[in-house]
Amino acid sequence: MFAKFVQPYWAALDDTLQDVVRSALPDEDSFGVMVRYAMGWENADGSLYEKVTGKRLRPALLLMTNQSAGGNWEDALYAASSVELLHNFSLIHDDIQDDSPIRHGRSTVWKVWGIANAINAGDAMFALAYTSMEKMAEVVSPEIALGLWSIFNRTNLELTRGQHLDMRFEHLDAVSVEDYVSMLKGKTGSLLSACAEIGALIATGNKEQARKYGEFGLNMGIAFQIRDDILGIWGNSSVTGKSAATDIQSKKKSLPVLYGLSNSPELVELYKIETFGEAEIDQAVTLLDAVQAREYAIEQEQKFHQAAMKALDEAQPDHNASQAIHEFVDALFDRTY
Amino acid sequence: MFAKFVQPYWAALDDTLQDVVRSALPDEDSFGVMVRYAMGWENADGSLYEKVTGKRLRPALLLMTNQSAGGNWEDALYAASSVELLHNFSLIHDDIQDDSPIRHGRSTVWKVWGIANAINAGDAMFALAYTSMEKMAEVVSPEIALGLWSIFNRTNLELTRGQHLDMRFEHLDAVSVEDYVSMLKGKTGSLLSACAEIGALIATGNKEQARKYGEFGLNMGIAFQIRDDILGIWGNSSVTGKSAATDIQSKKKSLPVLYGLSNSPELVELYKIETFGEAEIDQAVTLLDAVQAREYAIEQEQKFHQAAMKALDEAQPDHNASQAIHEFVDALFDRTY
Repeated sequence: MFAKFVQPYWAALDDTLQDVVRSALPDEDSFGVMVRYAMGWENADGSLYEKVTGKRLRPALLLMTNQSAGGNWEDALYAASSVELLHNFSLIHDDIQDDSPIRHGRSTVWKVWGIANAINAGDAMFALAYTSMEKMAEVVSPEIALGLWSIFNRTNLELTRGQHLDMRFEHLDAVSVEDYVSMLKGKTGSLLSACAEIGALIATGNKEQARKYGEFGLNMGIAFQIRDDILGIWGNSSVTGKSAATDIQSKKKSLPVLYGLSNSPELVELYKIETFGEAEIDQAVTLLDAVQAREYAIEQEQKFHQAAMKALDEAQPDHNASQAIHEFVDALFDRTY
Repeated sequence: MFAKFVQPYWAALDDTLQDVVRSALPDEDSFGVMVRYAMGWENADGSLYEKVTGKRLRPALLLMTNQSAGGNWEDALYAASSVELLHNFSLIHDDIQDDSPIRHGRSTVWKVWGIANAINAGDAMFALAYTSMEKMAEVVSPEIALGLWSIFNRTNLELTRGQHLDMRFEHLDAVSVEDYVSMLKGKTGSLLSACAEIGALIATGNKEQARKYGEFGLNMGIAFQIRDDILGIWGNSSVTGKSAATDIQSKKKSLPVLYGLSNSPELVELYKIETFGEAEIDQAVTLLDAVQAREYAIEQEQKFHQAAMKALDEAQPDHNASQAIHEFVDALFDRTY
């Protein structure tokens, strides 16, 4: 679905990523293999991995924004590589934190090499992300390079804040919708915001315009995640590939559920049951429908979606220039519920 | 022992650290308390912690080097705060990796909040370290600020490489002395090297001179760690505060042991015994003495110590300017074996 937006950049992006990783960590290094495995280039034994892992969504957004703002996307490749490395760093640590054994159909890094090594491989990718971003100083002015550094620092703090909230919410009975959106802002929105802001800043050096692009990325990220929450309950399984109501079965505290819990005492009662079977899932969906949780979530999604498009229009009033981004957003949101 | 070198900077450094941490993570934040706990400012419940944790050795070295190179140390405070935050980040992750329950007489972060939260708190401190370093752009030219960023990136990769080797060596039967020194270079030397290089670069903007200071820090760090290895076996317990031969009991693969293992087949045999009692410890020390492992280690220590002092002399030929550093190094190495 996103592939066609990533495709034009793919080869150059992969070259850049390989360059950053391989010049920092020599091929024969027993350490580097963990990073190359996480990037989807190698198997755990160091042999070539044939399938592609990861969608490279973030670097694509960065490069598209760069073009939309009038830049030459080849100039932004080290920044694009940086956000992809950062994303992969966060996945390695997330998988430990969530106790997840599988990602992209393969064992997670901690499953293969243990928690201690996975923490360290993640830390190395964090440092590699900064190393890649620093290389932008070869292309842009020192002032803009420092601006990129600053956006990146702010983003990384936001990411850890979002991750903290996400972990904390798992242990809370009640989470307000505001707190949930604040978590989404950190966990999903902040990096997408950075991609758009960084792409634009590289193109023009105009911080104000770049911030508008960032606002677009932030709101789009939140809207996208809320749509994911809706699909997790009312999704058409033939479209999403997940069976419907998966998020009810796992008792995930997604937006519709949080809204339901604060509006339906019956749902609160129901959620006290430890494990959900078919009957509980059906009842939960019925209770959510009764308080119009789906409508509420769609309303929220649209609110953030509109805010995103408004910011994009303000950042780039010329729709011809931002055409690719518009199509990209349409594709992102073209998942029927 | 180091306190008098840190003392002149302490108050200003602590103010800077508090400023960086508190402006990024609000006081009432349930996330910030983990960071403030790790910094030694608060108890786990957020109340004031009365004792001082950590020696602040790295920022002191950075500020001393800055002065030695002719700088005004107040200008380097955000860089000093940065290396201290980085050091504390690495301790949080190290403690998970080493399964250590206690640090500075208190429960480690993962012991209090669990592994998932401790990984994330460490990641936040990593980002905070970069945030603090970035603030140097308010004081130095953009070119120098970018130079600091570059040193910092290189250092962080070196740190993860050193940590990787350290973890790998635990599972190997034989580790060469060269590989061991390479590990020390990453794990201990790289950050001390960065402290000296960064301090000097801020003072003068002279990259070549700063690199000489960095060479001093690197070699000093390695020498210091080797001395620690010697003290771990032949240390005078009344001086070190540890009982002698602790590192034999824990079967730590320190430099003298690695040398012994590659020169004494009897020691290799002995080290096959799972748990060491008094008799095994005594026998191991006897075997190490027989192959002159202590003399070898002292020779290595002196080699790196001399390289450090030579680099310091080249970086700053005026001994008056570098007097504080000379006294500091003397104090560091004034632990009799």
